[in-house]
Amino acid sequence: LDTQAVLDQIRDEVRPLLSRGRVADYIPALEAVPADRFGIAVATVEGATWASGDAREPFSIQSVSKLFTLTLALRDVGERLWRRVGREPSGNPFNSLVQLEYEHGIPRNPFINAGAHVVVDALMAHRPDPLAVLIEFVRALAGNPAIAYDERVAASERDTGFRNRALANFLKAEGNLRHAVDAVLDVYFHQCAIAMSCADLARAALFLANGGRAADGARVVSAGRAKRINALMQTCGTYDAAGDIAFRIGIPAKSGVGGGIVGVVPGRLAICAWSPGLDRAGNSLAGVRALELFTARTGLSVF
Amino acid sequence: LDTQAVLDQIRDEVRPLLSRGRVADYIPALEAVPADRFGIAVATVEGATWASGDAREPFSIQSVSKLFTLTLALRDVGERLWRRVGREPSGNPFNSLVQLEYEHGIPRNPFINAGAHVVVDALMAHRPDPLAVLIEFVRALAGNPAIAYDERVAASERDTGFRNRALANFLKAEGNLRHAVDAVLDVYFHQCAIAMSCADLARAALFLANGGRAADGARVVSAGRAKRINALMQTCGTYDAAGDIAFRIGIPAKSGVGGGIVGVVPGRLAICAWSPGLDRAGNSLAGVRALELFTARTGLSVF
Amino acid sequence: LDTQAVLDQIRDEVRPLLSRGRVADYIPALEAVPADRFGIAVATVEGATWASGDAREPFSIQSVSKLFTLTLALRDVGERLWRRVGREPSGNPFNSLVQLEYEHGIPRNPFINAGAHVVVDALMAHRPDPLAVLIEFVRALAGNPAIAYDERVAASERDTGFRNRALANFLKAEGNLRHAVDAVLDVYFHQCAIAMSCADLARAALFLANGGRAADGARVVSAGRAKRINALMQTCGTYDAAGDIAFRIGIPAKSGVGGGIVGVVPGRLAICAWSPGLDRAGNSLAGVRALELFTARTGLSVF
Amino acid sequence: LDTQAVLDQIRDEVRPLLSRGRVADYIPALEAVPADRFGIAVATVEGATWASGDAREPFSIQSVSKLFTLTLALRDVGERLWRRVGREPSGNPFNSLVQLEYEHGIPRNPFINAGAHVVVDALMAHRPDPLAVLIEFVRALAGNPAIAYDERVAASERDTGFRNRALANFLKAEGNLRHAVDAVLDVYFHQCAIAMSCADLARAALFLANGGRAADGARVVSAGRAKRINALMQTCGTYDAAGDIAFRIGIPAKSGVGGGIVGVVPGRLAICAWSPGLDRAGNSLAGVRALELFTARTGLSVF
Repeated sequence: LDTQAVLDQIRDEVRPLLSRGRVADYIPALEAVPADRFGIAVATVEGATWASGDAREPFSIQSVSKLFTLTLALRDVGERLWRRVGREPSGNPFNSLVQLEYEHGIPRNPFINAGAHVVVDALMAHRPDPLAVLIEFVRALAGNPAIAYDERVAASERDTGFRNRALANFLKAEGNLRHAVDAVLDVYFHQCAIAMSCADLARAALFLANGGRAADGARVVSAGRAKRINALMQTCGTYDAAGDIAFRIGIPAKSGVGGGIVGVVPGRLAICAWSPGLDRAGNSLAGVRALELFTARTGLSVF
Repeated sequence: LDTQAVLDQIRDEVRPLLSRGRVADYIPALEAVPADRFGIAVATVEGATWASGDAREPFSIQSVSKLFTLTLALRDVGERLWRRVGREPSGNPFNSLVQLEYEHGIPRNPFINAGAHVVVDALMAHRPDPLAVLIEFVRALAGNPAIAYDERVAASERDTGFRNRALANFLKAEGNLRHAVDAVLDVYFHQCAIAMSCADLARAALFLANGGRAADGARVVSAGRAKRINALMQTCGTYDAAGDIAFRIGIPAKSGVGGGIVGVVPGRLAICAWSPGLDRAGNSLAGVRALELFTARTGLSVF
Repeated sequence: LDTQAVLDQIRDEVRPLLSRGRVADYIPALEAVPADRFGIAVATVEGATWASGDAREPFSIQSVSKLFTLTLALRDVGERLWRRVGREPSGNPFNSLVQLEYEHGIPRNPFINAGAHVVVDALMAHRPDPLAVLIEFVRALAGNPAIAYDERVAASERDTGFRNRALANFLKAEGNLRHAVDAVLDVYFHQCAIAMSCADLARAALFLANGGRAADGARVVSAGRAKRINALMQTCGTYDAAGDIAFRIGIPAKSGVGGGIVGVVPGRLAICAWSPGLDRAGNSLAGVRALELFTARTGLSVF
Repeated sequence: LDTQAVLDQIRDEVRPLLSRGRVADYIPALEAVPADRFGIAVATVEGATWASGDAREPFSIQSVSKLFTLTLALRDVGERLWRRVGREPSGNPFNSLVQLEYEHGIPRNPFINAGAHVVVDALMAHRPDPLAVLIEFVRALAGNPAIAYDERVAASERDTGFRNRALANFLKAEGNLRHAVDAVLDVYFHQCAIAMSCADLARAALFLANGGRAADGARVVSAGRAKRINALMQTCGTYDAAGDIAFRIGIPAKSGVGGGIVGVVPGRLAICAWSPGLDRAGNSLAGVRALELFTARTGLSVF
């Protein structure tokens, strides 16, 4: 199979979808991204990489960042983290307050917003400068020292992130945030504002396909932990569409409202597609379709 | 790896758990099953089978039956089935009415009770005698013509299944049941009352590990459909514990309140463990642990 | 103040509303009632009665009947009834399952459907023939021996009342119904199918305005109990519009989807208006407006 | 009837309850109030006042203040206020986020916290200095120029009011707050921190019993508006216990977690009882009982 040809064909095939999604408008700085962008990149455990379309253009990774903060927090805190955050799909939108209230401030999983706030809070207990640690971690995984926070996006989220502020204050009220709400949200808004390309993200996520070892061979987590993070992605990684996306794509995936979506084929490769237009569940319309086409064409699937 | 030795060791290792679960008591006929039973069986795509403990003793398969009715309904109705039932984890107990009301009578997935009622209703539109079709299907899959409905259990469920009756009447009120409530429930209570052993179930589920082909080589569904049923099991197969069980076990699984749990390792094998004592989420305490030990010992996982 | 003139003026004034409501269509037998009907009647503690429009035409009293079964059950069971049903407004539609599940089968109040099922169940424990007792009670209150169940309406509800059947089965599952679901629903569907006119209902409800004494002077309940039933009507009598209707009308009221609404001015009078067209909350559009005009014109209000 | 004797007898009778309630501990400054305090005061439309117990001791009026901000906002904004806040009982705790999310940021009524935030926001659009206006209004109503904000309590709420902050940020996210969250909450935390005695509050609420005229004869609102505010209190004034309290007390009432509860007998009198120990619904245990005894002894009731 010619991976480059597969990616190029997918790029052409999803083109009609690019105008059909809806670019996230609740963060003003994201609204400006042109809707016609599409990129796709693959990194394999053998060290090969392929890319097509706008695969080198940095975009706001948004919730894909939850993969990286979760990995860091698990390294620092270990399995005790699960006392403060669950491992179940939410059956609700990513920013819902309802379930959080019924379940007394224990977020359903680390990939919904409230869960990510708790992960940040846990990380802060071990790291005096979590933002520096996080960006270094991501740069090392991707092998790209130029990766940085987009301060304009972070500021935009801070100024308009009332719903995240509602969630974090609720967690605080329920006793599940130890640090100040504003300090936690500052880290959270910055992690969402990391700018990376499809090529960066495919490479950065490779450790999940590679038994816990990064692209450069360094051990990131144990093989067992990598499997368990993949399992979490499979059941919880794409908001309230995790079931449908597992059904259609068949591999663990994590998406963000910036339009990025990362998938993992354990033992084989990591893949990232990007297109800013979103479907109603908040996942990239063309990005999800691209991963669906990729797994269908290559026959790759965990199932 | 000596599979028989692995199974025997697991059987010994879970013994202390047998007294710790809680046998389902809301169906009087189930309550009588001794809590100290435990069986485990494996069927491989190469045709081998292994078993340990009470692996030949029939038990009430309960919700594991939802795998078989779903497979039949997909064959009869095709993908149109998804207009009437979703593919998302519910984030709620298996018999909750709450989400069903908020979502206007479209059950979240075919593995919660309301979803299974809709599956039965869809099947009834194509099959004048759904109970005969179902039992023949299960017998053929398992290669065991002695498999039968346990009429005592079916009658017990009919007499006490008020919550299922509430769900089905609600579906009817919302226009998502075409047949009479009692007719649908009669099929549903019977499907739950099928009596099979671990060895039967491992063999019957093998088509999901085997690209859609049954143990005897007959095509049951296409390879793509088998993958998609596995994806559904992974995200929705174990009630409101699907995330946690994916995290711990790492393979698609479907459980029942009779204490059975079936797992699938695509391309390799199907496994079934049984023990009547349940955890708080309604899954077999020792059964889940047995599958967890099995995947840990063998290194088998989809992730 | 000339009460007859007030009623006639209201009858003329609400005419434009008669075409704007929506006749209940979920019970086929109700759908046939002409939308242009409107009646209004007043009965005073001094023994006077006034009527205007179609005030002598019998209609299906539906949920207004909950007043009468509650009164009977309180006489039989006393305050112990409140162990099985609450006294709080529901903040939800009259037939919602959601709250009932969150609150484990204790209905919020006796005026939502599930609450009325529990009231019937309580009554059945004391009355071998509850339907005979109920119709005699209503006839005596109204002083009209011709009042009867409309069997066609009762049969229609029985055949289509899937949502009520869902609620009652859920109550049974939660252990809050002692009698068989079908037996309880038979009484419930019949109570809803009592046919009475505005004049009948105003007279029948007079005991609530009259310190617990019926129009003929007979003691029905104590003065304190009459007050407490009025308080319940005020907070819970008009489904999820109780606050708005208290705000607009200012007196305790109980409505039904047949288009009837009964109001009580303690110490003064009972009033009933009827028009089949309903608003979105399930209350009579013209009926609510008629009571609003009546209290505004007469200055009568409990507040 | 000797009102003074009735009040003194009630004071003696509720004494055993004083140790049984639970002083609000989520606002540190409130926790310090001794649990054995009890006061009661009555102000009549004829100008008489009676008091017993600690009726002259100022306490934190907390949610009772919602009566005063609502009255001010209705004067400034008129009935348009109801486009932003409902008039229905919530069927939920006073600080729940659940219903607010389901109903897209329109609070159920002005007496739950989120509703009071919207009322403050509406008031701020008309009043450059809402805190000065509010305290002057309350002083004039009570005829006591010494009434003041307790800055220590306001600061304590500001430092710990995470749940209110969650609610206000959610309202902001839904577009139902025009001013900055912190500015709205500053007013809100101050209104809750007004310190008044039972005698102050009975006199301040008298306009609601007196056709809209204050104790000194000044017109506060129209007679119709006073009635409608009373209706709102009746259905929504005591959190998720409004139905039960209407049932037991029989008059409109508004309570606060500081232990105060104000009741209104239209055309007759206003009453205020205070005791810091709360029941599970957040109402004063002895205060509610005191009002219940008062209406029972005097036969006063709106029903």
